[in-house]
Amino acid sequence: MVIDRKENNIMNKNAIQPLLIKNVRVKDEFWAKRLQQVREVVIPYQWQALNDKIPAAEPSHAIENFRIAAGRTDGEFYGWVFQDSDVAKWLEAVGYSLMNHSDQELERLADEVVELIANAQQRDGYLNTYFTIKEPAGRWANLRDNHEMYCAGHMMEAAVAYYEATGKRKPLDVVRRLADHIDATFGTEPGKRRGYPGHEEIELALVKLYRATGEERYLRLSKYFIDERGQQPHYYDLEAKARGEGSPGGKYGKAYSQAHVPVREQTSAFGHAVRAMYLYCGMTDVAAEIKDETLVTACKKLWDSVTKHQMYITGGIGSAVQGESFTFDYDLPNDTAYTETCAAIGLVFWAHRMLHLDVDRDYSDVMERALYNGVLSGISLDGKKYFYVNPLEVSPESCEKRNDKRHVDTVRQAWFDCACCPPNIARLLASVAQYIYSKDEDTIYVHLFVGSEADCELAEQQVSLTQRTEYPWKETVEITVRTETEVRFTLAIRVPGWCKNAEITVNGEDVKAAAVSRKGYARITRVWRSGDGVEILLPMPIERIHAHPAVRANAGKVAIHRGPVVYCLEEVDNGPNLPDLSLPQDAKLTLGGCDQSLGGAPVIHGVARRSAMTSQWKHVLYSPVALEREEIAIRAVPYFAWGNREPGEMLVWIREE
Amino acid sequence: MVIDRKENNIMNKNAIQPLLIKNVRVKDEFWAKRLQQVREVVIPYQWQALNDKIPAAEPSHAIENFRIAAGRTDGEFYGWVFQDSDVAKWLEAVGYSLMNHSDQELERLADEVVELIANAQQRDGYLNTYFTIKEPAGRWANLRDNHEMYCAGHMMEAAVAYYEATGKRKPLDVVRRLADHIDATFGTEPGKRRGYPGHEEIELALVKLYRATGEERYLRLSKYFIDERGQQPHYYDLEAKARGEGSPGGKYGKAYSQAHVPVREQTSAFGHAVRAMYLYCGMTDVAAEIKDETLVTACKKLWDSVTKHQMYITGGIGSAVQGESFTFDYDLPNDTAYTETCAAIGLVFWAHRMLHLDVDRDYSDVMERALYNGVLSGISLDGKKYFYVNPLEVSPESCEKRNDKRHVDTVRQAWFDCACCPPNIARLLASVAQYIYSKDEDTIYVHLFVGSEADCELAEQQVSLTQRTEYPWKETVEITVRTETEVRFTLAIRVPGWCKNAEITVNGEDVKAAAVSRKGYARITRVWRSGDGVEILLPMPIERIHAHPAVRANAGKVAIHRGPVVYCLEEVDNGPNLPDLSLPQDAKLTLGGCDQSLGGAPVIHGVARRSAMTSQWKHVLYSPVALEREEIAIRAVPYFAWGNREPGEMLVWIREE
Repeated sequence: MVIDRKENNIMNKNAIQPLLIKNVRVKDEFWAKRLQQVREVVIPYQWQALNDKIPAAEPSHAIENFRIAAGRTDGEFYGWVFQDSDVAKWLEAVGYSLMNHSDQELERLADEVVELIANAQQRDGYLNTYFTIKEPAGRWANLRDNHEMYCAGHMMEAAVAYYEATGKRKPLDVVRRLADHIDATFGTEPGKRRGYPGHEEIELALVKLYRATGEERYLRLSKYFIDERGQQPHYYDLEAKARGEGSPGGKYGKAYSQAHVPVREQTSAFGHAVRAMYLYCGMTDVAAEIKDETLVTACKKLWDSVTKHQMYITGGIGSAVQGESFTFDYDLPNDTAYTETCAAIGLVFWAHRMLHLDVDRDYSDVMERALYNGVLSGISLDGKKYFYVNPLEVSPESCEKRNDKRHVDTVRQAWFDCACCPPNIARLLASVAQYIYSKDEDTIYVHLFVGSEADCELAEQQVSLTQRTEYPWKETVEITVRTETEVRFTLAIRVPGWCKNAEITVNGEDVKAAAVSRKGYARITRVWRSGDGVEILLPMPIERIHAHPAVRANAGKVAIHRGPVVYCLEEVDNGPNLPDLSLPQDAKLTLGGCDQSLGGAPVIHGVARRSAMTSQWKHVLYSPVALEREEIAIRAVPYFAWGNREPGEMLVWIREE
Repeated sequence: MVIDRKENNIMNKNAIQPLLIKNVRVKDEFWAKRLQQVREVVIPYQWQALNDKIPAAEPSHAIENFRIAAGRTDGEFYGWVFQDSDVAKWLEAVGYSLMNHSDQELERLADEVVELIANAQQRDGYLNTYFTIKEPAGRWANLRDNHEMYCAGHMMEAAVAYYEATGKRKPLDVVRRLADHIDATFGTEPGKRRGYPGHEEIELALVKLYRATGEERYLRLSKYFIDERGQQPHYYDLEAKARGEGSPGGKYGKAYSQAHVPVREQTSAFGHAVRAMYLYCGMTDVAAEIKDETLVTACKKLWDSVTKHQMYITGGIGSAVQGESFTFDYDLPNDTAYTETCAAIGLVFWAHRMLHLDVDRDYSDVMERALYNGVLSGISLDGKKYFYVNPLEVSPESCEKRNDKRHVDTVRQAWFDCACCPPNIARLLASVAQYIYSKDEDTIYVHLFVGSEADCELAEQQVSLTQRTEYPWKETVEITVRTETEVRFTLAIRVPGWCKNAEITVNGEDVKAAAVSRKGYARITRVWRSGDGVEILLPMPIERIHAHPAVRANAGKVAIHRGPVVYCLEEVDNGPNLPDLSLPQDAKLTLGGCDQSLGGAPVIHGVARRSAMTSQWKHVLYSPVALEREEIAIRAVPYFAWGNREPGEMLVWIREE
């Protein structure tokens, strides 16, 4: 592959690219508080967890593994083969957080972690504490299962983030040596092994590393991993044979890690949902970098498969615990859903990348949906407890007593044996600023409505935008433009797919949003003067959402939605046996006040019906007599905020009658 | 325990007892055809299967195991530790079938099997091919898991049935030696082990053997097994310790085999549903024999737990594949149900026994419900294919692709690796005659409506009843009494719980059924003359049945029921995506013609609504726009007959709108 630098998107300042965290200061009520919490609570808490200092939490040992590998102490490796990645994701979150808010004490701590990681690296560049401590001879012998490249990818992402936050080259040097080692080991050239990772991640990380360093070998290596995946003879079979294993294939088969066929032949999302997301991110990155239309086509088909056929209304993905995986079109059971927090996070990553291939609100709508629902549900309002699995219906008794629901925690946990989700959500929250805006040669794009101040250079002019809003609870957004001189550019504002009658004015004058919209972005092209004000009204009626009729689990049911936020019912507000509740089609739903125990979110009130527990039912299981129904005032709360009060049942999809 | 023979129920000719198969000749369209099929198709087919002569079937090796144990051939044991029980159940079915219809050829074959079993018995009476062939030193070392007593129980049931059919003592001698061996090994007396079986069955079998032989030791041994169960120190812990196992308890814990607490302290049904049924049968038998009120109380509590809180509308029981077990009250998911055919069979056995403790239609209603629905669904209309699992909602794609539904076969199978169900259904069908009538000193009870001729002695008079009916499809039943002289007795006719306006006439004169009813049995006491005719009208409107509001899976849904028969929808009649269908509350359901492809059952017609697959849904997964609905003519068929045509979806509980 020859990469033409001039054709290169990212190196081309005119190509669309996100405004970076350092150029965007989040200022609103909703997200600024989260960022402060990430800094003050989540990052310190997770540091304690990684050091096994949270008494009620599952052990981690992740830092201790590095200390052992670095020769600073003696001991045994403990944890999963991918335990290192928890440290990497934490460090990446620290990098983003420092971009948002400098903190010398935290930076000093992170420097020590970088030093520790550097000490744990082997002379040849290899870096993985499991194999260094426990199984040195087993390096690269089982790419299918052993997560070495996955951990390497997370190290690269962390290093790039920390380098960009601090300008310190040390982490970058570490991961360049690691990448060089991998590049020297794998590839199509003679003497290299034609392997690729079982758990994707390094593909997207190598593109980040390429962008940070300009070293094209890293982009080429990423493309190699993507191109080689699923080719015949199959590498996983060859390496299994080399290990002396009889019947290769792995526990779940090759589709589990999207290695069943070459990626360009994949048209439906299969297998482990997080792996799929990370692969698709890498594919999208490489497609953007080298303008590979065959990859773009594959990405778009997979996007359709995931978001139009296999995605929960919360942006959660992965319908089955078995293999933490996708299943098949429209198979979206609410109570046995897996919907791992990491998978929703991965969907945000991927949507953001697709958006930069093609600015279409189809992508930003999904990005927003996952962010405000299936991602945020993964962390408690106090920042100290986590869901790994995010189903849309929970009955605690059922989860306790039925084996097919044992994967569902009904309250958030302090930490996990497999703790991928907590630091993953930390790094996403800490980097939320970069999802708000993008720009290209002559356009600034507003993807998300987040109160913030952003600076960028456009047509060699400094332009700054101030966004004021109480989104997602309030309907209005004000954007003020500041420039040194007049600048002609396009402000492209996403009109969310959920919003039917958006109104936009510039300095009080109505912009016919629909008329200037392309792919869901209202494009306002004019000569902007400093102080120009844009007002956006995004009406947020409470809506009842229906699922596609082929979604068996949601037949006859509706979900309550307002703006980008999915609502749910909790037992603490509505009593037990929530599936028995039904919402008359004409029942009015009204917006209530904000509830501080729900992080200040407004609740939704309505009147539903439930079965009267008459004596008829005392010793009767089945009866031809129709059920007596009675009215009940219901109270719905944002899905992401559920489980922060008294434990109990939860339900998103409500029967309509 | 001292058993007072004078107090003994069964030895007392005046106590209530079922009319035996040899006294009842089934003559109707519905059951006589089944009996003929059992004789002509099922028994020969299963003989082929037990001899591994069905090419498409899972291997059995069960007969071969006996040949090896008998020293007639060399070879290895193959199959489960309970493989012998398949042969025993087959032999029991043959016994019942011979009572219905003599067949010299079949009897000759069965004699050979008895001879083979006798040859496989060890000198000390021990009989189990697994331990004899494979692990002679392992006898009785693991009662919790190893099914030796379970197999012994089935041998006893088979021997009693075959003895009663043919008068041949040989099988009885074999099982007496086996029972004596067990009696010498287990019990509270010094030198005996205080063990009891992990899979119950021998308890009820020993009572049968006691009744057939009059040997009280067998009844005492049964009572011992029931009394000892769940006592402390726990035998399973002691034997596990003796085996050198560290943490005893078994894979699923002691409740799995109802051994968590002594049986009189058990108030909810737990664990493996088939084990539970067989235990409860044994408890009821012993309670009846020795008039143990504490056992009666325990049985009634457990009855309430099973039939009022954990039973599917089909009489299926066992909501979870994990442990093939009960879960908790009102947990009755339709698509992940286990509802093993054997468990529904066990419920028929138990209901029949409870009915003889206390003639209450509560028991016979459940017996009928299980028989006509959850049992009959286990066998194809041609008698050659079987369901092990009988869920109430099936989506083939889901069962193929979702691990939590992998236990569901979507078409009946030729045989099973674990083949408990096929011979179990054979023995129940072959013995259906004994469930129709009972009698005591002065009453003949009619529990089931089955065209038949029955003879019995009452008040030292011969009385015969001729029942004519096309039940369960037609509403009328005629019973004609024949006697030599006038006889005063009570004819107690069950008025099914599902039937609201039953009418009964004697010689054309109306009997006020409600006025003479006790516990659901209309008791007509009079001097009967030969030729007296009773006409019973059991109106069978098509009804919509609601489940208890706490059954989460059935909220807002109805099941279609007519007479004792549960109906369902199949894809072959109604198209795919059955959960999308909804039945308007006012939609009329009408009885259609009889369908020969459904064994001559009448179908039910109606008009429901389903989603119009408008282009709106082409690339949309969620929408605020209400679904367009269109009318669709639906056709419901008896649940037991589903899956006999083109494979596809099936649904019992239909959404009501």
